[in-house]
Amino acid sequence: MKFENAVETGTKLLVAAGVTQENAQITSQLICAADAWGVGSHGLIRLPYYLQRLSQGGINPNAKLEVKRQLTTLVVLDGNDGLGHWQLWQATNQAADIAAEHGTAAVAIESSAHAGALGLFTWPAIDRDCLTFVFSNGPAVMPAWGGSTALLSTSPLAIAVPGKPNNLIIDLATSTVARGKIAAKAKSGEPVPEGWALDKDGKPTTDAQEALMGMLAPLGGAKGFALAMAVESLTGGLVGPQLAKGMPDMFNPNDDSAPQKISHLVVSVNAEFIDDTHYERIAKLQNNVTQSGSRVPGANKLHPMKLPRNIELSLAPEVTAELNHWSDKLGI
Amino acid sequence: MKFENAVETGTKLLVAAGVTQENAQITSQLICAADAWGVGSHGLIRLPYYLQRLSQGGINPNAKLEVKRQLTTLVVLDGNDGLGHWQLWQATNQAADIAAEHGTAAVAIESSAHAGALGLFTWPAIDRDCLTFVFSNGPAVMPAWGGSTALLSTSPLAIAVPGKPNNLIIDLATSTVARGKIAAKAKSGEPVPEGWALDKDGKPTTDAQEALMGMLAPLGGAKGFALAMAVESLTGGLVGPQLAKGMPDMFNPNDDSAPQKISHLVVSVNAEFIDDTHYERIAKLQNNVTQSGSRVPGANKLHPMKLPRNIELSLAPEVTAELNHWSDKLGI
Repeated sequence: MKFENAVETGTKLLVAAGVTQENAQITSQLICAADAWGVGSHGLIRLPYYLQRLSQGGINPNAKLEVKRQLTTLVVLDGNDGLGHWQLWQATNQAADIAAEHGTAAVAIESSAHAGALGLFTWPAIDRDCLTFVFSNGPAVMPAWGGSTALLSTSPLAIAVPGKPNNLIIDLATSTVARGKIAAKAKSGEPVPEGWALDKDGKPTTDAQEALMGMLAPLGGAKGFALAMAVESLTGGLVGPQLAKGMPDMFNPNDDSAPQKISHLVVSVNAEFIDDTHYERIAKLQNNVTQSGSRVPGANKLHPMKLPRNIELSLAPEVTAELNHWSDKLGI
Repeated sequence: MKFENAVETGTKLLVAAGVTQENAQITSQLICAADAWGVGSHGLIRLPYYLQRLSQGGINPNAKLEVKRQLTTLVVLDGNDGLGHWQLWQATNQAADIAAEHGTAAVAIESSAHAGALGLFTWPAIDRDCLTFVFSNGPAVMPAWGGSTALLSTSPLAIAVPGKPNNLIIDLATSTVARGKIAAKAKSGEPVPEGWALDKDGKPTTDAQEALMGMLAPLGGAKGFALAMAVESLTGGLVGPQLAKGMPDMFNPNDDSAPQKISHLVVSVNAEFIDDTHYERIAKLQNNVTQSGSRVPGANKLHPMKLPRNIELSLAPEVTAELNHWSDKLGI
């Protein structure tokens, strides 16, 4: 499917589900951009889940993003259980505007929903020559280090530093791998590599079936747990109102009517102001990286609102079928 | 040695090396606090190297910390090649003061030196109910992912989120382990575990000798590289003036007269303002962690300026001998 057609389809589906045209358009564009970036796990494959939750009350189609508290450079927003995509996009734009003027900014959103690939949301900062950090939480899938109960989400984070020729955009979960990779191993009957997963009692396992019934392992062991704990403390803990533990699961149909109350935190800093010669050093660093045979993380992650409209998204047949099913269901 | 005696000895040595009483006292207290925290690798074992560099020109004993540029909430300081400890302590206090008033703040220091354990520098923020991020760079010891040239330092970061009963303080290098652990394996003739190290060509190795001649491996592979690249972009790249590659090495006597020009970046956010009910959720999260048999990172890392003065530091005999040697040399 062409990018522009996918965005249009997604927008229509979201509007049919009760979302305003403007919010539906931004959300659909960000969802399709994840597919264009090659992060299919956070792309259109998720749209049916959002639509189901919009129809059942788990996501509020009419949600407004309201200012709850505000200091000069710190804004706390209440998402009122609306879609995460347009809410986090608005928050990152606001943070970048404030940081460009005052030097730094933070915007927190409480009671929001899943926002997809966090790296997308670094672009409003990059647009204004700001560096940025983005954190979110989600349902618990990972134990504390040495523990046997799932307490932490994949605890994703994104960091961007504007540069030339490339921007650095890192976007990662603090688990070793995503659950999807374990599911794929289980399907093909292969074992999972050491360090990927824990069984239901929190013991390391290489058995893909046990892993699937168990939990994700933190990236690199204790350090990954520390990072995940920081992300959860910054989001569920500090912003709230919902910790990962006890959060409704997007993939569990029994939870479709229960808002997840996901929290997001964005922190931005005016990079241009720090040192106006930094582009040269960053170019040198990036050149060293590519010369050594590696690549700059995020170098290929283009602006989600400026993607060529005619690029082809490679969608799995099941994804297209699901979208057709929802188009019929919502009468579009 | 008792903590108070160690602090006094360190202060006298630094004053004898030309540092002002006030800066020497803060620096010594932070160095000894690293030992008290159990981070001996960043404690008094380093003081002889600092003294040597102070005597040879690699660290400027008379350095002032000067404001180079300032916006409302963003301050850029020039360290003039002074000791990193007192400079970063001052910067984190300034960031916390600004964040407490305006909501957020960032302070960058260019041309500074090694500051020891970054977790220590989260306390000025914790004191003012602020969350904080601290980043530094250092000499290159780690390649880009898939590369064969050392381009990145251990790329350390610290994050703190104030809480009750405990503060979360994470303080980690984005390499799998510190070089010291590899040196210990080499000494005892043991192999190093997979994932710790790369040989001089950037190939994974479990041979401790090859590892020692080679490079550190990034935490968890490509994701650790992405994190390290973010830290280097935020410090050497953005703040500068020195990238990890080409930075003089504290442990190389030939570099003793060459300033390292290390850069630090601190970002702080007023946590209290975000949500005044957050302490309850953070307590619940921390309770879940301890109940599951794990522990809260940093829970035992007490305020470096409020440590009991009579605690006993367990210093290696070589460290005590080196300090005695320097006391003789500097005539104290």
